[in-house]
Amino acid sequence: MVVAKKFVIANHFDGEPKPSDLTLVEEELPPIKDGEYLVKAEYLSVDPYMRVYSLNIPVGSVMIGGQVATIIESKNPKFLVGQKILGRLGWRSHTIIDPKDGDKTTFMNQPPELLPEIGNLPFSLHLGVLGMPGHTSYFGFLEICNPKAGETLVVSGAAGAVGSHVGQIGKIKGLKVIGIAGSDQKCNWLVEELGFNHAINYKTENITDALKKAAPQGVDCYFDNVGGELSTIVMYQMNDFGRIAVCGSISSYNSSDLNDIEKLPKVALVQRIFINKQLKMEGLHVSRWFNRFDESTNQNLKWIREGKLKYRETFTQGFENMFKAFVGMMHGENVGKAIVKV
Amino acid sequence: MVVAKKFVIANHFDGEPKPSDLTLVEEELPPIKDGEYLVKAEYLSVDPYMRVYSLNIPVGSVMIGGQVATIIESKNPKFLVGQKILGRLGWRSHTIIDPKDGDKTTFMNQPPELLPEIGNLPFSLHLGVLGMPGHTSYFGFLEICNPKAGETLVVSGAAGAVGSHVGQIGKIKGLKVIGIAGSDQKCNWLVEELGFNHAINYKTENITDALKKAAPQGVDCYFDNVGGELSTIVMYQMNDFGRIAVCGSISSYNSSDLNDIEKLPKVALVQRIFINKQLKMEGLHVSRWFNRFDESTNQNLKWIREGKLKYRETFTQGFENMFKAFVGMMHGENVGKAIVKV
Repeated sequence: MVVAKKFVIANHFDGEPKPSDLTLVEEELPPIKDGEYLVKAEYLSVDPYMRVYSLNIPVGSVMIGGQVATIIESKNPKFLVGQKILGRLGWRSHTIIDPKDGDKTTFMNQPPELLPEIGNLPFSLHLGVLGMPGHTSYFGFLEICNPKAGETLVVSGAAGAVGSHVGQIGKIKGLKVIGIAGSDQKCNWLVEELGFNHAINYKTENITDALKKAAPQGVDCYFDNVGGELSTIVMYQMNDFGRIAVCGSISSYNSSDLNDIEKLPKVALVQRIFINKQLKMEGLHVSRWFNRFDESTNQNLKWIREGKLKYRETFTQGFENMFKAFVGMMHGENVGKAIVKV
Repeated sequence: MVVAKKFVIANHFDGEPKPSDLTLVEEELPPIKDGEYLVKAEYLSVDPYMRVYSLNIPVGSVMIGGQVATIIESKNPKFLVGQKILGRLGWRSHTIIDPKDGDKTTFMNQPPELLPEIGNLPFSLHLGVLGMPGHTSYFGFLEICNPKAGETLVVSGAAGAVGSHVGQIGKIKGLKVIGIAGSDQKCNWLVEELGFNHAINYKTENITDALKKAAPQGVDCYFDNVGGELSTIVMYQMNDFGRIAVCGSISSYNSSDLNDIEKLPKVALVQRIFINKQLKMEGLHVSRWFNRFDESTNQNLKWIREGKLKYRETFTQGFENMFKAFVGMMHGENVGKAIVKV
């Protein structure tokens, strides 16, 4: 008999997530039936979206999230013991899967998918540069920002999984790329290893002045992971017909829910510069491009193999440390993709 | 000899416009030369954009603006005494025009244009429903909001020249239309005469509650003339893939210039709802569609003649009252297009 561990939502996050908002419980799994298979989590993802989307599911549900897992038992000839799958199974150590059920935890309602071998690259990349953050970076930047060689791109949350990826696509496409991140270590990584033209430490630098210096020609594309006043500052330095992709708003995720505007952070209004420069801003969710994920996976893999796209993963060891890894990621403790390794 | 009156910028507006920011001066005009003609202003426009764009021209310049004028003397066989022209000549009573010079006061750099007769319709419409506000309404709404029959449109500044026009195009296109305006008189006009489905008086009603009641199905298109907190409230009631056209930001025009974000009004950040609903927002300036103005003029004229597009003009008498009319318009004293009649 297998005992699964899982984190269950005890309370919807309200403000800063608290350990007591999630309960770690054990669940005795029944024997698998014909057609089913059993997986054991190897890598679990912690992502900013979890802070927000967990509010949409009932208290008592397993906390949402994707994982790479290994099949350890199977009564389905299409799924063999030892194979790896990617599934949005939530924060659970072991899961019985019936492929007919699809993936009930998500917008996509797709069953977990078998992962192909990717040479000497780790399977954990399917949670990052080859997974959801990779799709988000690829489509979000290219489809919303519509970048052109010679233009200037600013990326906020630049050292995160998506930000670091977007900036590198910007370089691949011939843009001048400026990252905004929260430590000198991150900024150095962006410039020295990833080839960003500039990086601004928003915790120690005056963003307005630093951005004017880094982009005296103005900003054409802004890929926004953080929202808030920082984003207002960037927008007021944009050029005519600038494009803004709103991918995340991590600066406001610990504010109250969307139903009470009063509790949201207040920032200088953006409409003035939208009129003055005819800016365009669009919010995005990667689900929009679901039927094109093969395109982004293949292109991102190709760029990795060509040495044009680098990645970093920040691992936290141990399933029981999921909450710690999640909160650390929300506070920017990770560089690149934050992952829990079981 | 003709003595022209003109308003000259004495100080760039800073905060609420003051009478002393403009100086009414007289100018003796020289005799006209071959190829030139002399016009006398009949109708002068006062528009919100003047508050903002006047900051871009030097102190000492004539205040910017469009007018319909009559040719009273001519040494150019193409421009006959008695004909009417539309020109962005600024706040002046009399102007000598050399058609070769173009219109140096504007982005378009086009010479004033001879106005065709439009049957029994007044020439003043070329400043409103058949002029710049008409082009703005037509292209701004149709091109940015991309409206579809059955959707719900919210218009702010709904009783102004552009807002009242946009709402009516919304009705023509089969949308449910909700206007937000600043008096019961205006709201009644929108619903009773223009056929809006609902109108909300933002000065006396709780906008959040009133909008939830008027649009329980949510908002698909938002045509924004005012910006600020009101716009945030509307955005947080929008549906997936909602579109926002930012045409004006009159709520912030009396704040400081664009170079000092600190002085701009602070409002609840909008990024959260942009991600949640994948909203799209775009700022617009009508100059973008300059080479298609014939299309909007013709369509707007057709709608007027079919009885589908109504208009109202609020006249202020006397050239010397330009400033008063301008400030009154900024305070929402007009219904429909605000015009000074000489």
